[in-house]
Amino acid sequence: MTYVDIVTVLAILQFIVFGFKVAGARGKYGIRAPAVTGHEIFERHFRVQQNTLEQLIAFIPALYLFSRYNSPFLAAGLGVVYLIGREVYAATYVKDPAKRSMGFGLTFLPIAILLAGGLIGAVRVSFLR
Amino acid sequence: MTYVDIVTVLAILQFIVFGFKVAGARGKYGIRAPAVTGHEIFERHFRVQQNTLEQLIAFIPALYLFSRYNSPFLAAGLGVVYLIGREVYAATYVKDPAKRSMGFGLTFLPIAILLAGGLIGAVRVSFLR
Amino acid sequence: MTYVDIVTVLAILQFIVFGFKVAGARGKYGIRAPAVTGHEIFERHFRVQQNTLEQLIAFIPALYLFSRYNSPFLAAGLGVVYLIGREVYAATYVKDPAKRSMGFGLTFLPIAILLAGGLIGAVRVSFLR
Repeated sequence: MTYVDIVTVLAILQFIVFGFKVAGARGKYGIRAPAVTGHEIFERHFRVQQNTLEQLIAFIPALYLFSRYNSPFLAAGLGVVYLIGREVYAATYVKDPAKRSMGFGLTFLPIAILLAGGLIGAVRVSFLR
Repeated sequence: MTYVDIVTVLAILQFIVFGFKVAGARGKYGIRAPAVTGHEIFERHFRVQQNTLEQLIAFIPALYLFSRYNSPFLAAGLGVVYLIGREVYAATYVKDPAKRSMGFGLTFLPIAILLAGGLIGAVRVSFLR
Repeated sequence: MTYVDIVTVLAILQFIVFGFKVAGARGKYGIRAPAVTGHEIFERHFRVQQNTLEQLIAFIPALYLFSRYNSPFLAAGLGVVYLIGREVYAATYVKDPAKRSMGFGLTFLPIAILLAGGLIGAVRVSFLR
């Protein structure tokens, strides 16, 4: 599961970078805490970070469950797709929020597969043995 | 712990469904990203999803800690209470936010028990052996 | 890893306390759900809670990865620094958001060390053996 651990750290580091971009936009556009609105570009960076948080709470458990019941290698591979998808999501969202669908799909799809594989595995072991 | 794994996947799927409802309300009420305000019903769906995210970060670790130090079966049972509580919370919140207390309690109570059981177990093993 | 489990429960309990403070401020300043804006002090409490959520999604996995590849004792010790840092962050943020940097640093630094230790450990085991 060590490959999965590497993917987990990379996904968290990616999230932290998104957070730094929010902090940078806060300074650049003069959005003083605790406000989280007031400039369109700031809000895009903020939504990218928040949406990534929503994805991580699904991604990390799903990654380990898939890895346990199926293949750690395949789990890590799906994790790499997730990481790339998040980069696409962030880049497109900041340019034009209306074009965020593809990047979102590229992170949602691997999460869906990881969850399905984890669920099927856990059900099989729980009830079919 | 396989029952606990099933509960974890179900809780994440429930959260994803809440997210789809936010996306649906975004379209229905014309709230364009990155905005997260502008229509009362949209905001209710959004808060349901956000509050569920806040619960999941406590629920998932608490579920596994309770399961490790106490009973995986009891952990899974408390998890089912959580899942039902979240459905009650979501349904009542969207109708009338002032009536969200019972649903909140039905998810907070199992989390509190899971956390307490996990903490007591970890303290006993750490210091009382 | 039982010390790490204790730290995890304490970090979640701390987050729950921050959530209760948000609920308290909601009542005190008359911010009715689903609104999350409308009074400066409420918004400060809310941002403390939300920022802590963002930290927890990094902190909890990082704590266990560091613990697995390095020392559980050191992981727990860094976790205690995180817990103290969050208290400083919350107290200073509510008084004056402009002074939140030190508390933020005191939680970010242990997370950065935990992540780095986890990544280095996972990479070594994956590729250098």
